[in-house]
Amino acid sequence: MAGSTIGTLFKITTWGESHGKALGVVIDGCPAGLSLCEEDIQIYLNRRKPGQSSISTPRKESDQVEILSGVFEGKTTGTPISLLIPNTSQKSSDYSEIASYYRPGHADYTFDAKYGFRDYTGGGRSSGRETAGRVAAGAIALKLLKELGISVTAYTKSIGPVSIHEDHFDLDAIYTTATCMPDQDADSRATAYLKDCMQKKDSCGGVIECLVKGLPAGIGDPVFEKLDANLAKAIMSIGAVKAVEIGDGIRVSSTVGSENNDAFYCSGGAVLKKTNHAGGILGGISDGADLILRAHVKPTPSIFSQQDTINKSGENIQIEIKGRHDPVIVPRAVVVVEAMTALTLLDACMLNMTARVSYLKDFYQKP
Amino acid sequence: MAGSTIGTLFKITTWGESHGKALGVVIDGCPAGLSLCEEDIQIYLNRRKPGQSSISTPRKESDQVEILSGVFEGKTTGTPISLLIPNTSQKSSDYSEIASYYRPGHADYTFDAKYGFRDYTGGGRSSGRETAGRVAAGAIALKLLKELGISVTAYTKSIGPVSIHEDHFDLDAIYTTATCMPDQDADSRATAYLKDCMQKKDSCGGVIECLVKGLPAGIGDPVFEKLDANLAKAIMSIGAVKAVEIGDGIRVSSTVGSENNDAFYCSGGAVLKKTNHAGGILGGISDGADLILRAHVKPTPSIFSQQDTINKSGENIQIEIKGRHDPVIVPRAVVVVEAMTALTLLDACMLNMTARVSYLKDFYQKP
Amino acid sequence: MAGSTIGTLFKITTWGESHGKALGVVIDGCPAGLSLCEEDIQIYLNRRKPGQSSISTPRKESDQVEILSGVFEGKTTGTPISLLIPNTSQKSSDYSEIASYYRPGHADYTFDAKYGFRDYTGGGRSSGRETAGRVAAGAIALKLLKELGISVTAYTKSIGPVSIHEDHFDLDAIYTTATCMPDQDADSRATAYLKDCMQKKDSCGGVIECLVKGLPAGIGDPVFEKLDANLAKAIMSIGAVKAVEIGDGIRVSSTVGSENNDAFYCSGGAVLKKTNHAGGILGGISDGADLILRAHVKPTPSIFSQQDTINKSGENIQIEIKGRHDPVIVPRAVVVVEAMTALTLLDACMLNMTARVSYLKDFYQKP
Amino acid sequence: MAGSTIGTLFKITTWGESHGKALGVVIDGCPAGLSLCEEDIQIYLNRRKPGQSSISTPRKESDQVEILSGVFEGKTTGTPISLLIPNTSQKSSDYSEIASYYRPGHADYTFDAKYGFRDYTGGGRSSGRETAGRVAAGAIALKLLKELGISVTAYTKSIGPVSIHEDHFDLDAIYTTATCMPDQDADSRATAYLKDCMQKKDSCGGVIECLVKGLPAGIGDPVFEKLDANLAKAIMSIGAVKAVEIGDGIRVSSTVGSENNDAFYCSGGAVLKKTNHAGGILGGISDGADLILRAHVKPTPSIFSQQDTINKSGENIQIEIKGRHDPVIVPRAVVVVEAMTALTLLDACMLNMTARVSYLKDFYQKP
Repeated sequence: MAGSTIGTLFKITTWGESHGKALGVVIDGCPAGLSLCEEDIQIYLNRRKPGQSSISTPRKESDQVEILSGVFEGKTTGTPISLLIPNTSQKSSDYSEIASYYRPGHADYTFDAKYGFRDYTGGGRSSGRETAGRVAAGAIALKLLKELGISVTAYTKSIGPVSIHEDHFDLDAIYTTATCMPDQDADSRATAYLKDCMQKKDSCGGVIECLVKGLPAGIGDPVFEKLDANLAKAIMSIGAVKAVEIGDGIRVSSTVGSENNDAFYCSGGAVLKKTNHAGGILGGISDGADLILRAHVKPTPSIFSQQDTINKSGENIQIEIKGRHDPVIVPRAVVVVEAMTALTLLDACMLNMTARVSYLKDFYQKP
Repeated sequence: MAGSTIGTLFKITTWGESHGKALGVVIDGCPAGLSLCEEDIQIYLNRRKPGQSSISTPRKESDQVEILSGVFEGKTTGTPISLLIPNTSQKSSDYSEIASYYRPGHADYTFDAKYGFRDYTGGGRSSGRETAGRVAAGAIALKLLKELGISVTAYTKSIGPVSIHEDHFDLDAIYTTATCMPDQDADSRATAYLKDCMQKKDSCGGVIECLVKGLPAGIGDPVFEKLDANLAKAIMSIGAVKAVEIGDGIRVSSTVGSENNDAFYCSGGAVLKKTNHAGGILGGISDGADLILRAHVKPTPSIFSQQDTINKSGENIQIEIKGRHDPVIVPRAVVVVEAMTALTLLDACMLNMTARVSYLKDFYQKP
Repeated sequence: MAGSTIGTLFKITTWGESHGKALGVVIDGCPAGLSLCEEDIQIYLNRRKPGQSSISTPRKESDQVEILSGVFEGKTTGTPISLLIPNTSQKSSDYSEIASYYRPGHADYTFDAKYGFRDYTGGGRSSGRETAGRVAAGAIALKLLKELGISVTAYTKSIGPVSIHEDHFDLDAIYTTATCMPDQDADSRATAYLKDCMQKKDSCGGVIECLVKGLPAGIGDPVFEKLDANLAKAIMSIGAVKAVEIGDGIRVSSTVGSENNDAFYCSGGAVLKKTNHAGGILGGISDGADLILRAHVKPTPSIFSQQDTINKSGENIQIEIKGRHDPVIVPRAVVVVEAMTALTLLDACMLNMTARVSYLKDFYQKP
Repeated sequence: MAGSTIGTLFKITTWGESHGKALGVVIDGCPAGLSLCEEDIQIYLNRRKPGQSSISTPRKESDQVEILSGVFEGKTTGTPISLLIPNTSQKSSDYSEIASYYRPGHADYTFDAKYGFRDYTGGGRSSGRETAGRVAAGAIALKLLKELGISVTAYTKSIGPVSIHEDHFDLDAIYTTATCMPDQDADSRATAYLKDCMQKKDSCGGVIECLVKGLPAGIGDPVFEKLDANLAKAIMSIGAVKAVEIGDGIRVSSTVGSENNDAFYCSGGAVLKKTNHAGGILGGISDGADLILRAHVKPTPSIFSQQDTINKSGENIQIEIKGRHDPVIVPRAVVVVEAMTALTLLDACMLNMTARVSYLKDFYQKP
């Protein structure tokens, strides 16, 4: 089935494999008149690219993006924006062995079960490299949201047992620490933990949190197109994510109503809430408070210690994976969570513009 | 926006408000030739309907379903199936007061922010009654999945601090306990806890788990239409759900790869896994193991104790909600989780039928 | 497949068979705040209903519509509007014979080929009665378009060899003549022709034209969602339509560029065209001129003279169709063309509201 | 809005402008296991490319396609296929003048009305060059349909006053004549007519017919996803098409039922029809007979004689268009009609595979 497209009005279609010629994305439905150049997109791709620290794979990819269409004289035209990112570091020979067996925790077996065979070089389409297209498209959504006064910021909340601490919260650190933690101290401890993991030929998981500020009330639609439902889909569609929380998330199941309800109050004409257990969404529609979500990311499945598995002939074998792998997926996935959140929010904001007859009248009857 | 439709090939559209004339659903894309009568659907609606125990709202609704189209001589025809459930217990007078203010934890404020006004009787479209249409449609999906050898079973895993225990697991208890727990002992303790909540004019949350058996490997699509992504959307779209987990869910963020990876092995020609931390999904595609997901449900926002809030004039006020409300949403939402899971799986199974050229050849070149 | 839904933002889903319990439609995505009552819809259904003249089937259907959801205190709420039209004149016994064979020109054979069996009573889902749901939904679109200053008017242009004459054009006559021709004289001649057809146990075809005034320039989208492309789909989806023309339509293939091009000119600040061969659409986007389209409707396939066909056992047989049938489909389909045009235009107008970044800024940054 | 995607299961997204860096298309949902190389696609692009005869624009474009993803070891993998066609002959300087005014018959004015500005070089996204992506995607659909025994063949039926004659019908001539007429004699006369047009600085229109053989009965879905409705949309979405006919098309409006009905008969176990006025579609579903459709194409709007129009300042001016333009669009659009027909049919064939419960059982319960 056609699974590489997401969005209703701001619609993106990604394509490309880990070791193919290139990766890319087509953004269709971007409003006309947005200033856009390659650098606007590159800054986000740079946050995702590998080989930038001692806790990342040494594989090098320049991930240089090129705009092929949809921009004229520096502005978006309203027609599809095609973005291309050539692959430069394909060592397909690395993967000859992998072709014959199924790596635990990877999609090797399920792709074969579905399609009868697979592109086994670097995971093909199931590789984390697939997210480059998401990030490139997300960069455009983030730029447009910013012009509407909406900011989206994701960061690492925890890696293995190490969590950030509220008292040390420092947004700038997201962009300077190797872990993308907004907490220098936690970053140090997490880095130490990761080095230990690597020494043990193991990997670990972690949590990414995303914070949205400036989102007006009224975004999202009832029933199946609830804002949280679409965010859950967008975030869970990122490889390795196994749980999504909105606001207090899993804590709501063990609390009581008198604690979980957020009391409304008015101040200076604005509708506010005393607490924000709901994470900014009530009944699937934004309530004007900060939107908060979390993604739980599993440990990198490629580990260097010995594992049991089977080969394509159905024989039980033991393997030791080689190659270049991150000991934790989280830091490089932070910007992917930011991108997917932005894409979902922008689409919902656009959809909201036809919610009332008065909006149509204002639009079509203006002098 | 049009948010009341979900599904690509097996597509449902729900409609109706808590206190309107009726609720309903149109199922479009149901394959022709399924035996179907009203009783097939009624048995699921009965599991959702209120007023069945001491821990449920005393509000009575018969929730009798009528098939209006799409079935001829006892079989589905392939054309849309329209199901109607009349509302019989609308006491709109109960709600005159609610019209003027915003209940904490409810969608009152966000609906007003979006649409400029709202149907305030019983929550209108944002009421939990909206799920009757989902359950009715889900009953058809469940029946068809069963004919393909796929079973979907949801149950209450915990209510407040009370969780089921593996050693007491008893599937039959789901349908006989008031809590829908597959554990008689946990049911007793949860019931006691709920009565205490009610006495304190409070409410509580809980966890619903859903277990799918018999799903073949290969279901789901890469990238944005991953099976877990669509399940996350379907489950998060249920009102009051604030977190969705697949397999080990949130636990993956604090574990290591050597523990989280599920080793494959072969036995009797079948591909099996020694563990199932992944919950039956790898790379967004089913791997043939049991599929497991969990929904975290917030406490019922309608509590009888005093709460701070605002009215439509922007004045800070205090309210005490009256009416008929469940102290916990979980037991009545169990069948909703089952329905949404079934709808998602059936759609994915249908989508999978065109994944290979050989499938098309087998279909169109049969003698 | 799920084929009973159309529209992206203003989305409708129809259901129901000719001789089932009822027909209906769910309109999802209707903006909130539109005054709506059953009479608004009934006036359009009345134009479609049978048994109103000597050239229509004597079958009687009251086609009374009931609003089941989506309207509160006289206004649309933004949530799905469910409309129900009970069937009252089902004489299924009429159809026992038809079950065994395939009527020429009908969908009997193709439904059996697709689904393995069919609801043979009155054509089931393939009956012209299916369009009642379209007309009911179209009534809402027409009402909303009117509030935006856009009028949509369809009428009969020709029946068999009888065409309306420009010099006699009289819009009011559409609603008073049995043929729905805006020309009293042509109506008389067409009526005479039809009576002759009926006497010969035959039927005839005709042309429906639709004229849209007040549509602003800029509606429709490039490439696949061109306004004319979506109109062509909407109109061709009406049973019995075999050709769709926009503007000069088929005449463009035998003309030259110097005649077919419409010259632009400016007058009083407005952009106008000296001619309108294009029918108001250039490059798939409205140009501000009147939009004009035509549907060519085939003769009613149910004729009373003897015909060759086959039965379900594959035997060549001869049949004489009995029952209650219109000698021409056109007059009752006029309001269906109007409805489908309105649904398509309203959806396109809503989609256009996010075409520019400046529109988003105006919307979200208003004080 | 996002208008550059079409299809439900076999979904394509085109991008690119006439004078941008490149054009392309992403095909998502192509089944796995189809042998595919660039030459398979190139042969279709070569039929569309300009500069191949005395009656075509002398502009040269090599239109070389490159496969960037979705094919591994010579076979489609089931993941998105990205195709790139670099632009090589961009003389943007040609277009400096056009930027200031609106060409009659072109989308210049409507793009400005919609987006506030436009890429004026060569028509930007509204250029006929946009169809290169359609043809590239169509080539894949055509290859797959062929493996299912379904052939799709389009050809020029008429150019201006010159029509092909049944007695001279010669399919091979489609690929050898400059007009793509399956009639050498008509080709000569049409060529003479076109040269006369060119001398008069004028252009002309024509008709393209498309013939489908081998399509089984049962393809297409009732109501809005009728096969003819989707074909009408696909064909009308091609720039310059102003009318679409199925089977007898416009002739049905002036005929009678006894002539228009196609009588069924059985022969050798097969269900056949004595005539095929319906063009192979009844009730929106294929009936097993040849599928026939026609597109009416307007004259090339770029003519070299003087025309009245306005500039962006709203002044009435006179222009003479320069540049490289085809005197007739038809021959180069033949393969576009073939592509759009194939894309629509393949999608409908895939959608049909879930029409019956028995199909699902056969698929999922095979040993």
